[in-house]
Amino acid sequence: MAGYHKPDEKTLQGLKDISNKLRILSIKATNASNSGHPTSCCSAADLMSVLFFHTMRYKADDPRNQCNDRFVLSKGHAAPILYAAWVEAGYVKESELLNLRKFDCELEGHPTPKLAFVDVATGSLGQGLGAACGMAYTGKYFDKSSYRVYCMLGDGECAEGSVWEAMAFASHYHLDNLVAILDVNRLGQSEPTPLQHDMDTYSKRCEAFGWNTYVVDGHDVEELCKAFWKAQQVKGKPTCIVAKTYKGKGIKNVEDQDNWHGKPMPKDRHVEILNDLQSQIQVPNKTLRPQPPNDDTKPADLKPLTYPSPPSYKKGDKMSTRKAYGVALARLGQANQRVVALDGDTKNSTFSDLFRKVCPERFIECFIAEQNMVSVAIGCATRDRTVAFASTFAAFFSRAYDQIRMGAISQTNVNLVGSHCGVSIGEDGPSQMALEDLAMFRAVPTCTVFYPSDATSTEGAVELAANTKGICFIRTSRPDTAVIYSPDEKFEVGVAKVVRQSDNDTVTVIGAGVTLHEALAAADILEKEGTRIRVIDPFTIKPLDAATILSSARATRGQIITVEDHYKEGGLGEAVLSAVGGEPGIVVTRLAVTSVPRSGKPQELLDFYGISAKHIAKAVIQTTAN
Amino acid sequence: MAGYHKPDEKTLQGLKDISNKLRILSIKATNASNSGHPTSCCSAADLMSVLFFHTMRYKADDPRNQCNDRFVLSKGHAAPILYAAWVEAGYVKESELLNLRKFDCELEGHPTPKLAFVDVATGSLGQGLGAACGMAYTGKYFDKSSYRVYCMLGDGECAEGSVWEAMAFASHYHLDNLVAILDVNRLGQSEPTPLQHDMDTYSKRCEAFGWNTYVVDGHDVEELCKAFWKAQQVKGKPTCIVAKTYKGKGIKNVEDQDNWHGKPMPKDRHVEILNDLQSQIQVPNKTLRPQPPNDDTKPADLKPLTYPSPPSYKKGDKMSTRKAYGVALARLGQANQRVVALDGDTKNSTFSDLFRKVCPERFIECFIAEQNMVSVAIGCATRDRTVAFASTFAAFFSRAYDQIRMGAISQTNVNLVGSHCGVSIGEDGPSQMALEDLAMFRAVPTCTVFYPSDATSTEGAVELAANTKGICFIRTSRPDTAVIYSPDEKFEVGVAKVVRQSDNDTVTVIGAGVTLHEALAAADILEKEGTRIRVIDPFTIKPLDAATILSSARATRGQIITVEDHYKEGGLGEAVLSAVGGEPGIVVTRLAVTSVPRSGKPQELLDFYGISAKHIAKAVIQTTAN
Repeated sequence: MAGYHKPDEKTLQGLKDISNKLRILSIKATNASNSGHPTSCCSAADLMSVLFFHTMRYKADDPRNQCNDRFVLSKGHAAPILYAAWVEAGYVKESELLNLRKFDCELEGHPTPKLAFVDVATGSLGQGLGAACGMAYTGKYFDKSSYRVYCMLGDGECAEGSVWEAMAFASHYHLDNLVAILDVNRLGQSEPTPLQHDMDTYSKRCEAFGWNTYVVDGHDVEELCKAFWKAQQVKGKPTCIVAKTYKGKGIKNVEDQDNWHGKPMPKDRHVEILNDLQSQIQVPNKTLRPQPPNDDTKPADLKPLTYPSPPSYKKGDKMSTRKAYGVALARLGQANQRVVALDGDTKNSTFSDLFRKVCPERFIECFIAEQNMVSVAIGCATRDRTVAFASTFAAFFSRAYDQIRMGAISQTNVNLVGSHCGVSIGEDGPSQMALEDLAMFRAVPTCTVFYPSDATSTEGAVELAANTKGICFIRTSRPDTAVIYSPDEKFEVGVAKVVRQSDNDTVTVIGAGVTLHEALAAADILEKEGTRIRVIDPFTIKPLDAATILSSARATRGQIITVEDHYKEGGLGEAVLSAVGGEPGIVVTRLAVTSVPRSGKPQELLDFYGISAKHIAKAVIQTTAN
Repeated sequence: MAGYHKPDEKTLQGLKDISNKLRILSIKATNASNSGHPTSCCSAADLMSVLFFHTMRYKADDPRNQCNDRFVLSKGHAAPILYAAWVEAGYVKESELLNLRKFDCELEGHPTPKLAFVDVATGSLGQGLGAACGMAYTGKYFDKSSYRVYCMLGDGECAEGSVWEAMAFASHYHLDNLVAILDVNRLGQSEPTPLQHDMDTYSKRCEAFGWNTYVVDGHDVEELCKAFWKAQQVKGKPTCIVAKTYKGKGIKNVEDQDNWHGKPMPKDRHVEILNDLQSQIQVPNKTLRPQPPNDDTKPADLKPLTYPSPPSYKKGDKMSTRKAYGVALARLGQANQRVVALDGDTKNSTFSDLFRKVCPERFIECFIAEQNMVSVAIGCATRDRTVAFASTFAAFFSRAYDQIRMGAISQTNVNLVGSHCGVSIGEDGPSQMALEDLAMFRAVPTCTVFYPSDATSTEGAVELAANTKGICFIRTSRPDTAVIYSPDEKFEVGVAKVVRQSDNDTVTVIGAGVTLHEALAAADILEKEGTRIRVIDPFTIKPLDAATILSSARATRGQIITVEDHYKEGGLGEAVLSAVGGEPGIVVTRLAVTSVPRSGKPQELLDFYGISAKHIAKAVIQTTAN
């Protein structure tokens, strides 16, 4: 152990004292709120003490400084001990901690980035390590800085597959600036965890997934100091500290006992428990200060991202929007160093490989692990270090819906691009068709949903997404479709395009992607029969341009037809209903996929599911009979 | 190897010949469809030959017989070789296989249970093993039968965390009737897999996750016969056969080469490739027949499930619907042996532990692995072996949305019960609040969505769900609310209850769960001021009782107010808009949560997000001003 200096006895005692201070604060706070997880805090107290007051390097008065080491509390229900650490570090007031979980307090039940010392929200278990991987990848390969990333997990959450996706990712990419800490306190919410204190099996699993692994006594501060120091020396591998701990550690008759998950200490034992912990503190007023970080990370560059030139598509050119996405991202990436791209082994289908060809050093292959891909992307985008675009088949974002849901709570600005939407993919069949993605993304409160219908508007969507706060989802399609906009067309979030109109339109038809082209084909068919329709491209499904839709509808007898390559629930049709439902006199007819589809040729399927030009024309004729 | 008898040379040659026949059929079929994955089939050909014509026991003319061994093709894109195996077994016509992926053919791009030899749809990777775990658990513990379960995975999909959730589950429950086969063909879709042919690491991972593991040459039929035989002898552990294979095995200049994923063989090489494979077949007309299964499994009992007695709640009693779910499921389970329950370490919150108390042998603790829980439940429910109810916080079903989506394609009848919906959970904060679950489940085409508002209607929902085909979702709430229905009230899918009405109601208010009680409180407030409202409990959100809602709306000046503890997109409000959007003269005002919420007291949050009684009363007053 050349180079390792054991901390002196005063420091070790100081760390032990801090552990108990953190326990005391966690118990006080959860008593004040009469809810929360003091026992899950107490198992982690010694780990937190050593991490925050011996190992990690950060500016305690500037928690979001870009040079700081990162800490992710994946076991988010232990939030009070994280808050307690920041009380001890001097950033949070103890009086504020006693407002834990109250409506007007930002110290919520689980951590969120409303707090400057939190980068990603946690509380849905198993998600922290993926985000930490994104931060560590960014530190090592994009920022090329010395900050390190620490992620604490509970043992219960190690049942989540997303943890093992992240484990495989971290070792594959040699993230030696990443340390995972497993707080193996043996007890889950409703019963012991499957492995209880089988430290050997935890260790084997971590090693098999390519991690340098140390099994330690999670309550021995000296052993912890040494283990974290050793982790700092390891090159080429992430390190996992598998810490044997006891839930409720330090609380008599509670420690290591069943049925104490998520329960504050009983009121009649409160004083006794706190006094007991207090009595173990040997130097009450001693404080330990964290080491400062290296100042080797530049502040984030927050300039707007733009293309070097307008798109070059000509009207009538044929290109799929999925390919146009790849072209656009490559152009944006070449002009803006902050852009990074991720994919889940579908890059030759989503066309993100066009970005990789020109910016290989900013492309992350995440393999077939969509949950982790989304978490890594969110991690990459924390503290505005990068502008991240992650792509896969839109259907497979359903695999990461919990990560996306949590991404909204994390205030992430990540961009997600889903290809192969709808039945128009054809022969591959329903497992590969996204037909619920609009419902899914619309129900994410911070999400902007782009649904471009040609190559030029896809360029617009990519640029806007890169500059729009919150989650952005871009839905792309597999079939080649005609370019309908000229290169100088301007696109805005929430602004629809009226792509066909006359003075005597009988119905407003709203389509997007392939169904916009079907709507235009229907307009051609109908025009020959003397019927004119107005056709609208919404461009963004959320926010939806209610004003344009309403004024068009009023110009067409209140009649709207929506047509979408999506299930009838939660998609374009319901978005339009939402926009007009408060207005009397508007009638919406909706064409959509209404049952689990099947394999077949794209056009056959559009026909069979009633969303092709001929069905639109028929629906128009029916409304004119009204 | 006492007891092992090496197959005779004729049998081994027969198996080798079948391998090549399966390759030929896969290549022919994908050439006919001009799409599909012949190279992913060829790597698995020898494994399929040995499994289907030497190891597995089944009735080739009755693929869904309850006594048969089960086979799950988790790498669903290799569908043609599964279909080819059933051609060789005599169940599928070769001519039909040449219609692969065509609109009128049930041999689709990925397998679905439209085919009698498929129990669960695959094609979204990493899901097969979880379903196979459910089948194996059912075989071992519920059916107590000798059928065995085989699941073939690709190496690419082993990056999916869901695979490792299933691995942990299978060893924890000692599923020695389960065999996983990893077809490690080294190449993914867009590049080599992360581990390529690192068989040692695969083996270590499987062993660390508690599996008996054999690394084999996946193209050596004799070695495969022996490995599968050995797997049959192992007690107390599942077995993983880690097979080193080559993608495109047997196709010259394609085998083990990049850039052949998902590509049919080139037309100009088609004949040469087929001739080459054909020339290796030594006894072209020889067939091998599978061994029959033991007839030790009873046919499924398809009797309707009923309670032994009506519910016993009195109007005005207070109980949360989550607790009422536990009470109901326990009652249903005691009276019906087919009912099984699963939970993800939340059983003391969802109250599924009330079922476990009375039917412990039919409760499966799935720990914190929601994806796997849903897959296991789907597996348990295949072939109608059980009626499965799986519960967790509704928010955490977002973790399994891809599994649920695929469940619809699988035609599963599984029941999913999500507790802790909405902001009314209070202090735990947004990570624990389901606010997109209605959007999510409504967009599943086979799904019935129950949203009971009191204990009695929860009993109704549970019984109906048990007897309803397709996926059923029951949304339950955390707070205690008053019982509003008498024990003899009858509930039906798609039938709403008008819970408050008079002859001069001014508005129709639709609430569900806690917001129904808020609506009733608003009615009380308004009544004192002389304003009457109609209040509707939809009971099921999908299907929604459009007739009752429309007739009520017409009786209340066309005015509807919806109020929901859910985001504004895709939930109750949009369901109502969907039901009335085709009708002129109806105006829908929607109260819903419109931003990421926070911690606080339940009533504080209902108020802050505008869905409490006072906001409903205010909205009513506003509409009366219209």
